[in-house]
Amino acid sequence: MFVERKVKDFINIDPLQTGGRLTEDAKRMLLEWGDGYSVCDFCTGDLHAIKNPPIADFVEELANFLGCDIARVTHGAREGKFMVMHSLAKKDGVVVVDSNAHYTTYVSAERAGLKVVEVENTGYPEYKVVEERFEDAIREGKRRGEVVLAVLTYPDGNYGNLPNVKAVVEICHDRGVSVLLNCAYSVGRMKVKADELGVDFVVGSGHKSMASSGPVGVLGLFEDYAKLVLRRSERFKNKEVELLGCSVRGVPLMTLMASFDHVRERVKVWDEEVKKANWFVKEFESLGFELLGEKPHRHDLLHFKTDKLYEISKRVKRGGYFLYDELKKRRIHGVKPGRTKSIKLSTYMVPRDDLKKVLEAFEEILEKYSAKGSP
Amino acid sequence: MFVERKVKDFINIDPLQTGGRLTEDAKRMLLEWGDGYSVCDFCTGDLHAIKNPPIADFVEELANFLGCDIARVTHGAREGKFMVMHSLAKKDGVVVVDSNAHYTTYVSAERAGLKVVEVENTGYPEYKVVEERFEDAIREGKRRGEVVLAVLTYPDGNYGNLPNVKAVVEICHDRGVSVLLNCAYSVGRMKVKADELGVDFVVGSGHKSMASSGPVGVLGLFEDYAKLVLRRSERFKNKEVELLGCSVRGVPLMTLMASFDHVRERVKVWDEEVKKANWFVKEFESLGFELLGEKPHRHDLLHFKTDKLYEISKRVKRGGYFLYDELKKRRIHGVKPGRTKSIKLSTYMVPRDDLKKVLEAFEEILEKYSAKGSP
Repeated sequence: MFVERKVKDFINIDPLQTGGRLTEDAKRMLLEWGDGYSVCDFCTGDLHAIKNPPIADFVEELANFLGCDIARVTHGAREGKFMVMHSLAKKDGVVVVDSNAHYTTYVSAERAGLKVVEVENTGYPEYKVVEERFEDAIREGKRRGEVVLAVLTYPDGNYGNLPNVKAVVEICHDRGVSVLLNCAYSVGRMKVKADELGVDFVVGSGHKSMASSGPVGVLGLFEDYAKLVLRRSERFKNKEVELLGCSVRGVPLMTLMASFDHVRERVKVWDEEVKKANWFVKEFESLGFELLGEKPHRHDLLHFKTDKLYEISKRVKRGGYFLYDELKKRRIHGVKPGRTKSIKLSTYMVPRDDLKKVLEAFEEILEKYSAKGSP
Repeated sequence: MFVERKVKDFINIDPLQTGGRLTEDAKRMLLEWGDGYSVCDFCTGDLHAIKNPPIADFVEELANFLGCDIARVTHGAREGKFMVMHSLAKKDGVVVVDSNAHYTTYVSAERAGLKVVEVENTGYPEYKVVEERFEDAIREGKRRGEVVLAVLTYPDGNYGNLPNVKAVVEICHDRGVSVLLNCAYSVGRMKVKADELGVDFVVGSGHKSMASSGPVGVLGLFEDYAKLVLRRSERFKNKEVELLGCSVRGVPLMTLMASFDHVRERVKVWDEEVKKANWFVKEFESLGFELLGEKPHRHDLLHFKTDKLYEISKRVKRGGYFLYDELKKRRIHGVKPGRTKSIKLSTYMVPRDDLKKVLEAFEEILEKYSAKGSP
């Protein structure tokens, strides 16, 4: 069976996808290493120690890239979070998380048997993490049990907000709480150095932000915690328990490796991406929409309040799907079907000319459905 | 960066790899769906419910193929085992496993905080699982805690032995213990129907036996346990906790789907593969080697005691690596470098002509290093 991808030649502004498009090298890797377990051609018992293909070297460079002592390849950011939480879990354990956290942060905690205490954001319109509120949350967490970890989302996938990491770390460390930074949308897009930021763990996503096939992610940590999180099996001394021996034993890892040079280069021109995002915000707002999240924005993940589209959806036959239909006609992919009250998109690595077409598309759609000329 | 695979045109008899070679459709899928998170183009919140690409349909057919009520895609057999063990885990929980179990069965139990009680095999030369010994093991398990699961390996990766599943199931069920069948080397090669065999869970491996890229696996189960193992998050009602929401959100799943028609056909000609394996055993033993494991053999995973090779290794400069060197020269891949006391290989889907070349190679190597003519 072969299934064609419907949107492959579309302009893609899907927040989940703009950072995960493969490089040409990664595409070549796919065919070269596609066969099951081919990365294990010369395995000596530990995926991260394989020399041919050069996984061991890559993992070392990855640790350096993350500003950590040690790195591991995971199936994704969520699996990295679970590994850490599961290792740190205790009876009556509590995780403190910012309320912009990805749903998998909550589900990881739930799977690890940990309670969650949330740090509220500022609400509409900026939904910012208030760093100082981690104090209260830790206090509340300690009332409910033992706080084993704090998770900060950097940035969150909903608003693209970048909280002040150092401020949160200072509060947490002062209270004996370690910090995991969820960088699913930053590692591979912008510079993230765990040592400079002071966090204890960092997780990233290959498919979301490192030009890789899914599923693959990264985990960075330091010697102190490695003993616990990367503990080895009592019976099988070269097998790490939390990885069940080996994690991504297949081709997504090879795409991560293939794209790594490109990724290291592209984080250097992140400022250009932020400029482009803010240019888009300005243009898009001029159509009568409103950016949610931090302003000025410091990330390509954009969330707009789109009342005008919602108003249209209430009076057209297809309801909320009218927008999806119109964008599809114009070969634009990435706005969730059915959604009109607010929409999320990403400008990351989308050429300015394509973004202009997106702006034109929305302008046309508003015009077409304007009260006067509505079909 | 691009890395070439060294052994791609070699005759491949690696037990880890013969069942994971991609179909042509799967190769096309790789490029079509390689970009990170492209399978999520039209996601509505649950990987297994995605209609385009037709993942939902596939998962339903997969359940049917496994003889189960429900199927899930996992990162591999080990991750399926851990999901089940983690769901069933209790304080002082015990898992009973056959001693031919893959190391990941032990590591999964360790990660889930479960003790392991082993069912001894018969030892040299057949290393067979003695089904009746599950009785004693369960009794021992109950002395040590609460037996939450039995795991049977079908076949094991060391000898390719196929134990009597129904006999084990009867013993376990009579004692209130559920059975997980580890089919990493059977689902996708031979017919496995969980309902006919009576097991409660079945796990399989895409990269090992279903012509798929790694990492991907399958889990089959029934309604009764689905409520527990596939329990949904309290907060996010459409997210399954043990899958952290979604598992293989990427291209390995697409290769599994692409190869599924082929896989369903190839299990029908399994008898031919077993015949070929036994033909190979006869020829290989005629060189002075001895098959370990069940005789006659019922699987393509072959393990030979190779004293003659070990004797050579003791008197040549490269030691155990001489065999690897000689096979490499002849473009034969799959025997573990350094190994000579015993070697493991697989004949699965290796053309008879290629297997003849393998036999000739070993004959030549023995001749070359015979006491008289030794280099």
